[in-house]
Amino acid sequence: MAKKEQGFVQDITPMDEDFSRWYTDVVKRAELMDYSDVRGCMVIRPYGYGIWELIQKEMDARFKETGHKNAYFPMFIPENLLKKEAEHVEGFAPEVAWVTKGGNEMLAEPLVVRPTSETIICSMYARWVQSYRDLPMLLNQWCNVVRWEKSTRPFLRTSEFLWQEGHTVHASYEEAQEETMRMLEVYREFAYNVLAIPVLTGQKTEKEKFAGAQDTYTMEAIMHDGQALQMGTSHNLGQHFAKVFDIQFLDKDGQRKYAWQTSWGTSTRMIGGLIMVHGDDRGLKLPPRVAPVQAIIVPIAMHKEGVLDKAGEVLAQLQAAGIRAEMDTREQSPGWKFNEWEMRGVPLRIEIGPKDIEKGQAMFARRDTHEKTAVSLENIAQSVKEMLDNIHDTMLEMAREHRDAHIFHAETFDQVREAVDKKKGFALAPWCGDRACEEHVKAECGITTRCMPFELQDQAEGKVCACCGKPAKKMIYWARAY
Amino acid sequence: MAKKEQGFVQDITPMDEDFSRWYTDVVKRAELMDYSDVRGCMVIRPYGYGIWELIQKEMDARFKETGHKNAYFPMFIPENLLKKEAEHVEGFAPEVAWVTKGGNEMLAEPLVVRPTSETIICSMYARWVQSYRDLPMLLNQWCNVVRWEKSTRPFLRTSEFLWQEGHTVHASYEEAQEETMRMLEVYREFAYNVLAIPVLTGQKTEKEKFAGAQDTYTMEAIMHDGQALQMGTSHNLGQHFAKVFDIQFLDKDGQRKYAWQTSWGTSTRMIGGLIMVHGDDRGLKLPPRVAPVQAIIVPIAMHKEGVLDKAGEVLAQLQAAGIRAEMDTREQSPGWKFNEWEMRGVPLRIEIGPKDIEKGQAMFARRDTHEKTAVSLENIAQSVKEMLDNIHDTMLEMAREHRDAHIFHAETFDQVREAVDKKKGFALAPWCGDRACEEHVKAECGITTRCMPFELQDQAEGKVCACCGKPAKKMIYWARAY
Repeated sequence: MAKKEQGFVQDITPMDEDFSRWYTDVVKRAELMDYSDVRGCMVIRPYGYGIWELIQKEMDARFKETGHKNAYFPMFIPENLLKKEAEHVEGFAPEVAWVTKGGNEMLAEPLVVRPTSETIICSMYARWVQSYRDLPMLLNQWCNVVRWEKSTRPFLRTSEFLWQEGHTVHASYEEAQEETMRMLEVYREFAYNVLAIPVLTGQKTEKEKFAGAQDTYTMEAIMHDGQALQMGTSHNLGQHFAKVFDIQFLDKDGQRKYAWQTSWGTSTRMIGGLIMVHGDDRGLKLPPRVAPVQAIIVPIAMHKEGVLDKAGEVLAQLQAAGIRAEMDTREQSPGWKFNEWEMRGVPLRIEIGPKDIEKGQAMFARRDTHEKTAVSLENIAQSVKEMLDNIHDTMLEMAREHRDAHIFHAETFDQVREAVDKKKGFALAPWCGDRACEEHVKAECGITTRCMPFELQDQAEGKVCACCGKPAKKMIYWARAY
Repeated sequence: MAKKEQGFVQDITPMDEDFSRWYTDVVKRAELMDYSDVRGCMVIRPYGYGIWELIQKEMDARFKETGHKNAYFPMFIPENLLKKEAEHVEGFAPEVAWVTKGGNEMLAEPLVVRPTSETIICSMYARWVQSYRDLPMLLNQWCNVVRWEKSTRPFLRTSEFLWQEGHTVHASYEEAQEETMRMLEVYREFAYNVLAIPVLTGQKTEKEKFAGAQDTYTMEAIMHDGQALQMGTSHNLGQHFAKVFDIQFLDKDGQRKYAWQTSWGTSTRMIGGLIMVHGDDRGLKLPPRVAPVQAIIVPIAMHKEGVLDKAGEVLAQLQAAGIRAEMDTREQSPGWKFNEWEMRGVPLRIEIGPKDIEKGQAMFARRDTHEKTAVSLENIAQSVKEMLDNIHDTMLEMAREHRDAHIFHAETFDQVREAVDKKKGFALAPWCGDRACEEHVKAECGITTRCMPFELQDQAEGKVCACCGKPAKKMIYWARAY
């Protein structure tokens, strides 16, 4: 056993040795994904896709509660539509895939595979929006998108990925801004309460905002290695797209006006985020609310009379209570199974053996803290539910502690670099607000601005920019980003 | 009112005048879809997508109950993969979209946008399948696919469409055949019990089978105009793909063997089917289990005290009971609303006015039979549920009557043509089994074979082929097909 266990853990590179290899070892070993023959595209295997299905279910319920409906728009976008909004085409044209041939004929106008759907959706909104009575128009789409990436990494950056994109139309700037912030809050609440990731929220700079947006807001998370991952963005598009796509409505006052719009998106990238926030040297550690298997029952001494019967009874009780439970009755030893399910990140392991049955109990082993406790078989489904909630809370708290321990105040450029490169975290620093300063820092050392946190802006008062020394206008997070 | 109602119905061409125009009027007017700027691609609007979401939910539960898991494979397929299986490439190459440029560079090898995913999935199965312990491998994928169609029609035939495709691997022919038939039965049961469509099932001929399959089975439905719609297919792929993609496994007997495979699919085309089976001159008629709105509450004399309160109470009760109910409180007259919701196919309308409230009742108006009945407000949610089940059963029965009245026995070619072109239905006829005969009939008059029904094969005995006079081997349905 001891030998097997060792051999097993050796499949995964320790985090501190090489975080990037640890990550690829984990996603591969846990069968979340596999590489394909197609450049930059990955296969999402059932265990990884199961996480995505749970993410979709949770998010979709939140979108519907806030009044949104799903729709589906064509994946192909004619070149002329993509080119209508100047900033948008500049941002996306270099990274799109082009369809130039259909069946046996060359196309008169090439089509791009959607990198995002603002343009095709706006071309429809121009028809559907006529009167203030049609507003707000609140749609969301679940789909695949393609961005031709030069270097890719599973879940974090692939040429094709899965996402949701919300697209809304409003009668005023204020309503669009309210929607933008509402959806950022939906994302933030989802990150905390489902993914157990304590994201930071704030506004993006002009340089980092979405191509074509008026303002972009973001949720950013600190990974285990101190780097940033942008987990979702919400854009107030202003009237940028409405003006080029001619989306006008007749307002209550009898005037024809350009509409105001928002868009917002999150993707399978979030799966990369939860791996890098929660994982450890044993492998994955899944937050219970998106774990395809929440509780794994491992019968001990399976061959002994009554063990499989009792374990099966418990399994049935848990499943009847809506818990995603499975039982592992394979030939391998319990020790091998413990390792296997820990590596796959299952939040709770339940061991049931002859001695446990005698005592009317089961052993609970938590993936988050590795604690083991004996729990009565009476009302076991209720005990599991409570334990899963507790594991969620504990994982969120552990991630919050890690986050807070990796944010460093910086007043000088040296301190920014020290925070990011030595202390491996985020620098929170006063900033002048100039794009040139941001570009200079990025060119110098590859560190980028993440966001301007809403609640800390008054700290900038009277300070100077940590990077260039000019009077500070904003407080901003600097980090290295995935 | 009368004038408005009339004007309203005139938006939809009567079925008997022009069925094809009736269809496009309905899908457009009911806001199921809209045409886009992209050739052959449509937009699925929220009301249409809502039907698809309910179809997905019902089917997905059935796939999971039968042991399948979802996964996601790349949308792009390298040319060399598509070309591996000879029949497959011949069937699909003429109708694929080609990506030839990514970002700013021409691709060394062009990629096709998946028309179906056998090839890309088999390239992965070749890695994943090693031992009999890995089998069966039971995966399904929900995604978009592209087939470059010359002439398109909303939902029925579009260049891009949404579908599910199951792909499984087995250790023996028998297991693959069992899976093929199991999934055909899942489809059939779904068509009957969810879509209220009494499909016919059977085997496809060699000519009509899937490109690359050993045998194809299908469910076919008879539309209101007597034409056939193929609603879903299930293929036994034999070892065709396993041999060219080298999917081998070490069997229990220590021998390496090629695996056996199946694939099976259904698509948004089913939405076209349910429109053309159930609809009438007033518009859509949705089967309750996939109706985004199952019950619409129309308050009568809304301004009178207590009406909106009581109607709102009923709404809350229905929604709490899991019924997809909505209330229409717009300014328009009740008559306008009746027409509107009938056109949109809502199965049950509930009218609540001051007199109803006095009597402790509501008026139920069924979309299927147009019957109106007074129903007590006590336990109204239960009454609605029962009514919806009754509507489902009645719609299925009406469709079954239509189906059975449009199947005609034919012994000669004239009778086949008469059944199809004069009586507007299916011909059930003895057939020689020769591809040449099928090709001749198709060339002559555009009539095609639909399937060989399992349960009627003994009727062929001693008969001659209705089309060519040679001894008959099979009983087969002939029809015009969408």
